[in-house]
Amino acid sequence: MRILSLEPLTKQAFAPFGDVIEIDGSDWFPINQGSTRRYHRLGLVEAGGGLPGISMARGDAHRLPLEIRMLERHPLGSQAFIPCNGVACVVVVAPACVGDRPDESRVRAFLARGDQGVNYHRGTWHHPLTCLERAGDFILLDRIGAGDNCDEAMLSQSYLIQSVGAG
Amino acid sequence: MRILSLEPLTKQAFAPFGDVIEIDGSDWFPINQGSTRRYHRLGLVEAGGGLPGISMARGDAHRLPLEIRMLERHPLGSQAFIPCNGVACVVVVAPACVGDRPDESRVRAFLARGDQGVNYHRGTWHHPLTCLERAGDFILLDRIGAGDNCDEAMLSQSYLIQSVGAG
Repeated sequence: MRILSLEPLTKQAFAPFGDVIEIDGSDWFPINQGSTRRYHRLGLVEAGGGLPGISMARGDAHRLPLEIRMLERHPLGSQAFIPCNGVACVVVVAPACVGDRPDESRVRAFLARGDQGVNYHRGTWHHPLTCLERAGDFILLDRIGAGDNCDEAMLSQSYLIQSVGAG
Repeated sequence: MRILSLEPLTKQAFAPFGDVIEIDGSDWFPINQGSTRRYHRLGLVEAGGGLPGISMARGDAHRLPLEIRMLERHPLGSQAFIPCNGVACVVVVAPACVGDRPDESRVRAFLARGDQGVNYHRGTWHHPLTCLERAGDFILLDRIGAGDNCDEAMLSQSYLIQSVGAG
């Protein structure tokens, strides 16, 4: 079993895996005669061969310590989860390696605050939705259409996330 | 000046104008080994000739009574606003009539609760984001791309929304 430390979720650190959808620190311009700030193009819905769908998700609460045993990916499109009720999440990702498996030497875990969403780019290996402490409601943006759009990989060992702010 | 009463926002009443994005009363199926409910395909991002973009919006607080003097529409794509911090909105819409103007005999106003988003279908005349009482943060889903995608129409008279639950 390997210990994963929980990193803060920042646009820069998460860039190899996807977009961070958040207002904090994002550029904006005024619309609606100045009554609204538009934080423009924080991400795109990639839906090759399908349709860009708007769904919602309600995820169960999880508590640390957490054991990660599998990752999944969507080869045909992106997938975003953006919180609607301020629930934080653990976001676990890995780059792909030879054989199209997750590269287990580079698994990373991020703590997404309750005002941060993630948009996994097409094909990014990631753990399914994992809300911390409370059940969470999310906007779910992904490809809707025919074709097999979910690969799952069991990991060769377990990865343990022990606590927020520690290894 | 005409008085508009504020109707509750329901999928059925709003169907001619767009989708209501909400968990309440929507169908779901389990994903992630049963730990997540997926409320599937509540709407689609229509982005003809452009890209389906994920942005955010922070809208100023407004208070009733509210005077509506203009509507806008996006001829090239849909536009969704889904609340992230539970702020209610006034949603004013109208069907199009001859000459492609809003049909002023059929202007309607809905109260979107803080757990309800709207996805205006392509070309639906609607009022810009109007948060009630508090400033609101929203996921904004619309077409990103070249071309003129915003028409505005000044109305021939003002429409007054006086209070929640009354005309």
